[in-house]
Amino acid sequence: MAEDDIARWALKIEYDGTNYVGWQRQKDGLSIQTLIEAAASKLVGGRAVSSITAGRTDAGVHASGMVIHLDFPADAPINGRQIRDGMGYYLKPHPVVVLQAAPVSLDWSARFSATWRSYRFTILNRQARPALQENHVWHVKRSLDVDLMQEGANFLLGTHDFTSFRAIACQAKSAVRTLDVLKIHREGDLVLVDTQARSFLHHQVRNMVGSLVMVGSRQWPTEKMRDILQAKNRCAAGPTSPPDGLCLTGVGYPEDPFA
Amino acid sequence: MAEDDIARWALKIEYDGTNYVGWQRQKDGLSIQTLIEAAASKLVGGRAVSSITAGRTDAGVHASGMVIHLDFPADAPINGRQIRDGMGYYLKPHPVVVLQAAPVSLDWSARFSATWRSYRFTILNRQARPALQENHVWHVKRSLDVDLMQEGANFLLGTHDFTSFRAIACQAKSAVRTLDVLKIHREGDLVLVDTQARSFLHHQVRNMVGSLVMVGSRQWPTEKMRDILQAKNRCAAGPTSPPDGLCLTGVGYPEDPFA
Repeated sequence: MAEDDIARWALKIEYDGTNYVGWQRQKDGLSIQTLIEAAASKLVGGRAVSSITAGRTDAGVHASGMVIHLDFPADAPINGRQIRDGMGYYLKPHPVVVLQAAPVSLDWSARFSATWRSYRFTILNRQARPALQENHVWHVKRSLDVDLMQEGANFLLGTHDFTSFRAIACQAKSAVRTLDVLKIHREGDLVLVDTQARSFLHHQVRNMVGSLVMVGSRQWPTEKMRDILQAKNRCAAGPTSPPDGLCLTGVGYPEDPFA
Repeated sequence: MAEDDIARWALKIEYDGTNYVGWQRQKDGLSIQTLIEAAASKLVGGRAVSSITAGRTDAGVHASGMVIHLDFPADAPINGRQIRDGMGYYLKPHPVVVLQAAPVSLDWSARFSATWRSYRFTILNRQARPALQENHVWHVKRSLDVDLMQEGANFLLGTHDFTSFRAIACQAKSAVRTLDVLKIHREGDLVLVDTQARSFLHHQVRNMVGSLVMVGSRQWPTEKMRDILQAKNRCAAGPTSPPDGLCLTGVGYPEDPFA
């Protein structure tokens, strides 16, 4: 489509990633992107609608406040309420919904305009497997000391080369990132890891959590987190945590498009 | 079994009630009781194990801290860890787990020794249907004012005849109950109703929530809650809320058997 023919909308969406291959369209399996674009297309009589996301979540990862943008045909008579409710209808029975929709200019991008992303990683720290939160927590039986985890986490705050914490397959040019928040607290049997940065490397949150669990279970001293950073080698860090516990909770912009 | 032949254990259990007919064994469909007794029986080589619960939750209602007791054969060599882990294993793949198990005397009853039960009812108050919390919330689109709900709730605190709030089928001899806690607060899109009493009538929590939503959405004045109580007539109250949002969170005893 030529630029004149496009109406761009920012959407805040929520989804349960359990049974999907992740955000991005894949050869096999159903992706969130496929579902979203199909629902948007139905809103405008089957015409093509393309999407860009602020974060390409992996298979099994959830989102409670993901932001994407959709390019609709400019002549389609749609408003924010129709996008929210109509797409929510067409997305049934999939656990994917539109929370908010707002018109944005063509120089606004859900991905490139974003100034931060935030994630919450949830660990269920008890002996019994999850009954109420299956697929939404990482079940860790070893007793975790959250004070030790926070001490270890503090070594990661600020600007560092996060090579040791990125997936081997990560395609980002630079591994330097600035971690603004990495807070750990306990609520009963749950250990909650909240983090925020301008952007994250592929698997960075899951890799950081995997190492922090080694620290929290006293298998590693807290200072090991600093050593891992300095090694700049993925093999120095702990195992990648499973995707189940990870949820993208928010994306920030210089101006909130939904305000 | 004669009393001498019984070893009684208190269990704290968690379950997702979505796909079950409720606690109690029914002619059709799978009950939590059936699953629990079958798993317990497997622990002791197929011998019969009977159960009593502190609360017979309805179909679709969840529990994060239900307490039950089980009568095992006294000569079966079992300990608390084996009950917790072994039953958790035999209960797979059902979302039912044993959190804790402790030996109790034969004059202790999960049901009759209990001095309070607590429930949380969760309402999702937004336009979009739930994606992450399906089957665990009541989705209410009308905007709810939690201050008005709390004002209405305050009329129900204390000792009253709760005839208006009990199911027609309720079999309790008296409808008089003492409501010790009924607190409502908002966390983002969620409206949380926390309540506690020595015991509740059948459907009492779901019926109270149904009426409080009428108050919170300004369809009824807060004083209507007092009028409903005084009417002593089920037809005076609002609709029964769906089971999805209800979760039994805890049961109290003069002495905590798990301490």
